[in-house]
Amino acid sequence: MPQGKPENVPDDGLTTRQRRNRPLLIVHTGEMKGKSTAAFGLALRGWNQGWSIGVFQFVKSARWKVGEEVALLALGEVHRDTGRGGPVEWHKMGSGWSWSRRPGTEVDHAEAAREGWREIARRLGEQRHTLYVLDEFTYPLKWGWVDTTEVVETLVARPGNQHVVITGRDAPEALVEAADLVARMTKVKHPMDTGAKGQKGIEW
Amino acid sequence: MPQGKPENVPDDGLTTRQRRNRPLLIVHTGEMKGKSTAAFGLALRGWNQGWSIGVFQFVKSARWKVGEEVALLALGEVHRDTGRGGPVEWHKMGSGWSWSRRPGTEVDHAEAAREGWREIARRLGEQRHTLYVLDEFTYPLKWGWVDTTEVVETLVARPGNQHVVITGRDAPEALVEAADLVARMTKVKHPMDTGAKGQKGIEW
Repeated sequence: MPQGKPENVPDDGLTTRQRRNRPLLIVHTGEMKGKSTAAFGLALRGWNQGWSIGVFQFVKSARWKVGEEVALLALGEVHRDTGRGGPVEWHKMGSGWSWSRRPGTEVDHAEAAREGWREIARRLGEQRHTLYVLDEFTYPLKWGWVDTTEVVETLVARPGNQHVVITGRDAPEALVEAADLVARMTKVKHPMDTGAKGQKGIEW
Repeated sequence: MPQGKPENVPDDGLTTRQRRNRPLLIVHTGEMKGKSTAAFGLALRGWNQGWSIGVFQFVKSARWKVGEEVALLALGEVHRDTGRGGPVEWHKMGSGWSWSRRPGTEVDHAEAAREGWREIARRLGEQRHTLYVLDEFTYPLKWGWVDTTEVVETLVARPGNQHVVITGRDAPEALVEAADLVARMTKVKHPMDTGAKGQKGIEW
């Protein structure tokens, strides 16, 4: 929809400007590649608008996604050094979030996921970022580590003009219900089906 | 597939390394957002690998996609200034390609599309880039402006280790056949369905 033309114009009393600036809850789900990649691509757009970007990766080992991390953090440095674009923060659960690394303690992934979500909820309350990428956040929801009802309530009630993109397979139905935009990435064909291995630059 | 584990190991005599470095032809199709965005996200990964990235946008007016363009070109500058990542070139058809702007002539979009493809074919022959993003290239194929058979033959015969990502709705069947990886982005829900307008940072 390059022209940005709505298919229907609702009788909701909102002006075009109000409708244009609606904060969006976006979900990228489905079994295929492209969910996270498209979310990070969206972060490129937000960066260009001068938005504060916060990425939160809910993965145990984030090694394989280092490409986007390095590139987006480089854009954050461009902002810091020249004022162009916006600031970028990148946090990954890994073996503990950057804001609370506790070396020596046994890692409890469920608790780490809850801690990540509490921090995101706090930032949403403070309107810290304009775009939040909650990468692979569907998994802690699916596994019951983080309460879906609480997440949906917090997201729906978030103040201001904060956009949130959540990626991962098997997005819970309540999240899909609450979302403004849901894209499903489906596989037509994948090289691993015929025995290819993942390769740098493509898979991570 | 974070672990990069193939589902089958083929009896093709190739080593893991050879299979790992297979140059990929990737197609992002379907009616939903995310096709181009995921391609530009892939360019982030390639940039981090130090790859030469060439983006070719086959759109008449590329105004609405300026976000990724500005951000990826900023990464190209980071490469030029610090040696980190790889170089980035971004060309758009618009009212004429950057390498052959002919002011004053009447714009023939079909011819412009063919000219874009000839340049890409030339660069593939020279192994100029490691990742080519042919954004919205399915449309000139669909409209018959560029010959699909010739494109597929050229892509299949391309030398070296050059990855090509083609985006757009209605990818021709012959292109899907030839591709290594095809992702279809489908719509579950979109805010424009309920009358929302496109907004900066999200749509462009």
